[in-house]
Amino acid sequence: MPVVINEWGLYTDFYELVMAQGYFLCGKKDEKTVFNYFFRTNPFNGGFTVFAGLEDFLAALKEYTFSSSDIRYLEEQGFRHEFLQYLSGFRFSGSIDSVSEGEIIFPNEPVIQVEGNIIECQLIESLLLNIINFQSLIATKAFRIKQVAGTKTFSDFGLRRAQGLGAIHASRAAAIGGASSTSHVMAGKMFDIPVSGTQAHSWIQSFDNELDAFRAFVKTNPEHSVLLVDTVNTLKSGVPNAIIVAREMENEGHRLKAIRLDSGDLAYLSKKSREMLDNAGLNYVSIIASNQLDEYVIKSLLHDQHAPIDAFGVGTELVTGKKNAALDGVYKLTEVNGMPKMKLSENVEKNTLPGKKQLYRCFDNEGMFYRDAVLLAGENHEDAGKIFHPVHRHKFTDISRLHKEPLLKPVFSKGKILIKKQNPANIHLYLTKRAELLPVEHFRFISPHIYKVGISEKLMETRDTLIYQLQQ
Amino acid sequence: MPVVINEWGLYTDFYELVMAQGYFLCGKKDEKTVFNYFFRTNPFNGGFTVFAGLEDFLAALKEYTFSSSDIRYLEEQGFRHEFLQYLSGFRFSGSIDSVSEGEIIFPNEPVIQVEGNIIECQLIESLLLNIINFQSLIATKAFRIKQVAGTKTFSDFGLRRAQGLGAIHASRAAAIGGASSTSHVMAGKMFDIPVSGTQAHSWIQSFDNELDAFRAFVKTNPEHSVLLVDTVNTLKSGVPNAIIVAREMENEGHRLKAIRLDSGDLAYLSKKSREMLDNAGLNYVSIIASNQLDEYVIKSLLHDQHAPIDAFGVGTELVTGKKNAALDGVYKLTEVNGMPKMKLSENVEKNTLPGKKQLYRCFDNEGMFYRDAVLLAGENHEDAGKIFHPVHRHKFTDISRLHKEPLLKPVFSKGKILIKKQNPANIHLYLTKRAELLPVEHFRFISPHIYKVGISEKLMETRDTLIYQLQQ
Repeated sequence: MPVVINEWGLYTDFYELVMAQGYFLCGKKDEKTVFNYFFRTNPFNGGFTVFAGLEDFLAALKEYTFSSSDIRYLEEQGFRHEFLQYLSGFRFSGSIDSVSEGEIIFPNEPVIQVEGNIIECQLIESLLLNIINFQSLIATKAFRIKQVAGTKTFSDFGLRRAQGLGAIHASRAAAIGGASSTSHVMAGKMFDIPVSGTQAHSWIQSFDNELDAFRAFVKTNPEHSVLLVDTVNTLKSGVPNAIIVAREMENEGHRLKAIRLDSGDLAYLSKKSREMLDNAGLNYVSIIASNQLDEYVIKSLLHDQHAPIDAFGVGTELVTGKKNAALDGVYKLTEVNGMPKMKLSENVEKNTLPGKKQLYRCFDNEGMFYRDAVLLAGENHEDAGKIFHPVHRHKFTDISRLHKEPLLKPVFSKGKILIKKQNPANIHLYLTKRAELLPVEHFRFISPHIYKVGISEKLMETRDTLIYQLQQ
Repeated sequence: MPVVINEWGLYTDFYELVMAQGYFLCGKKDEKTVFNYFFRTNPFNGGFTVFAGLEDFLAALKEYTFSSSDIRYLEEQGFRHEFLQYLSGFRFSGSIDSVSEGEIIFPNEPVIQVEGNIIECQLIESLLLNIINFQSLIATKAFRIKQVAGTKTFSDFGLRRAQGLGAIHASRAAAIGGASSTSHVMAGKMFDIPVSGTQAHSWIQSFDNELDAFRAFVKTNPEHSVLLVDTVNTLKSGVPNAIIVAREMENEGHRLKAIRLDSGDLAYLSKKSREMLDNAGLNYVSIIASNQLDEYVIKSLLHDQHAPIDAFGVGTELVTGKKNAALDGVYKLTEVNGMPKMKLSENVEKNTLPGKKQLYRCFDNEGMFYRDAVLLAGENHEDAGKIFHPVHRHKFTDISRLHKEPLLKPVFSKGKILIKKQNPANIHLYLTKRAELLPVEHFRFISPHIYKVGISEKLMETRDTLIYQLQQ
């Protein structure tokens, strides 16, 4: 199964191509458009979302072209010759503004703004949504785990339960969110993420007994000396054998790094194991826990039960989001040839915001995130005055005296990526700095405080005029 | 972001490599092993699972090698020179038996059996689990949808919410489970799945009004004449405009194919739309529905509310499994150098079954699936006699007079794939034939009948002897 994606043209929904052909044939191909990416609900019932995937999206966008074999395939699907000729020379020629990777973002604010002709902006919709929705979901999940893990580390162990090739970028996003390492070697190599891992039950089973298995393991892999202690019986066999091996290592001037618990009651077993290790003078041996973990279990283990666990391996929940397996991000047309456009919905909360925009983060007097403000692109944010609740206009905030920071910055223009490649650990550092500015109430798991995103009076008027026109 | 995976060696968990090095250095590299893949719980609280992903797994296995750049990377990770030399010439040289793709399978029965030396069998664990767990999950989800869709078709619209590159094989698995087409063009081309799609709200918004947008669409894309009718107001604008356009098409000898509903109450809107279309003499125009669908919503729409919907577009739920985003398949060592091995668990239900095995499907007198029987590989199934509940030995069934079919068949040997490549539609046909043999009670969504999987007396004795030894 060699998977080789050098050209990304077909990584799209069929209807994007059908519409592109339509735009092309009805003479709209040079119409200038603006599209916005935003999402509607923070995943995991949380109070924030971590923006991730930008670098991969832009890299794919640069290669958003059609091979001659792609063109032949589309010909078989009935696309017209003149359109296919256009596609065969296609490159995205527009420009993109975006918030930075690792930024903390909120529902209903534009976090990516795409400008270009209607065909190119339409064609790349699916690519953008696929990459950004997924990586933002997983980075958010990882950062939630990081919140409760605190100074303890956690590693991404998800490859075996990840959604096929989604595993690759799941590991990247997990590292952005705070996983200190990944078990997925290919992702580690691709994205410069530290790799880690220990041993499986099969290692133990392949020997005549557990003690032999432990001895052979630390002898052949002293630098990875973590012993899985639950193959036979954790407290009666695994930990005692680990202690024997740790002492033998001491005699040779080495130190056992850790034991790993992978089943049973992790709170109980970690306490008993810690006691046994400490009583044996092995207080330097760490305890690693894995098995069906998520932020709730880790919180319970560390904060409620004070389990002496030093590091966690997190798999399925981290790399799939499990119950919330998708971020609901959408990509909407907001302007055509300078004219604002919007999509009406029966549900007013789902009306989209028209026009080309800028997104500002407003800080309170302590320098903390206070409000986000969506303004029309032309507006001077210095005299923006009040911003309004998108639905209930009697709710507003005066932001004139607040320090404001524009969040949408140019990231792609004239075929070139304008941002520097960073490894996930660096992006995580940025995320950490930003998270320090978000009041803690937004990190709460249950009923987190809702971060307010307001719109300027001009944007509100533009929208309401459009609604009036559309309803005629 | 060119994603090029020609060599799959690093598509593994780090600990597989650590253990492989350990086996290599302690002289176990030529030990002969058997590993079994099985899962423990049917996803979606269902009564069955569809086996999928085999072809892709075997294709990747054939390319499970390490490039010189991979070897350099592993050298940087501290792996030893002699082991890396071994890895640089590595190819899986073992053999694999498996059930067929599209087979209906059940918890705790071995559905893939891998034989080879301990290093090769260990290394490929993560690759196997990643591909088989995911595709089986999605094929099962799709087949659940197929159960309720009946003669109505459904299409995979999931790319934008799929888990990154997981999108590619999600579309394949969805087609195996019964999706009649995919919106994902790259997957369509790769796996020979029909592609389909219509238009987005942006198409409508980019015109001055909906009627112009509809006219332009059917003119430029007559072969894809499906009109999205909910951009302004479904019943007051969308459907009336679609009717105008359908009549104009009739005047030119064409026919409008369908309208698509993508928001609002799909039961109500489909009934009203059907009425309006029929009253206009357009009973040939189909109704397609999309928006947050899954098997429960489709069941309610078709079976409880008799919504006149002809086809469905299903996205997020289909390609991610959403609430059940992972199948819990595992890969366990069951034999070393001819000696049966097993993993004990505090939870007796999680004890693994030792030894090399064969899996038989037993049929009742009507030719329906009745029991699955796990026997040791050497056993003659003709005189198997009774099979026993894996935990409660007082529950047994005599299968001696039943027709039996071995399910594990050679699929890989001596570096060669032994099965023929098939497109997903063909695999779906096989699935359909097999599903006809499974009593309907197993397809129930709520408390489905549990299909019984028993083990032979010899297997039970082998296991119990091992348990006794392990507990000494």
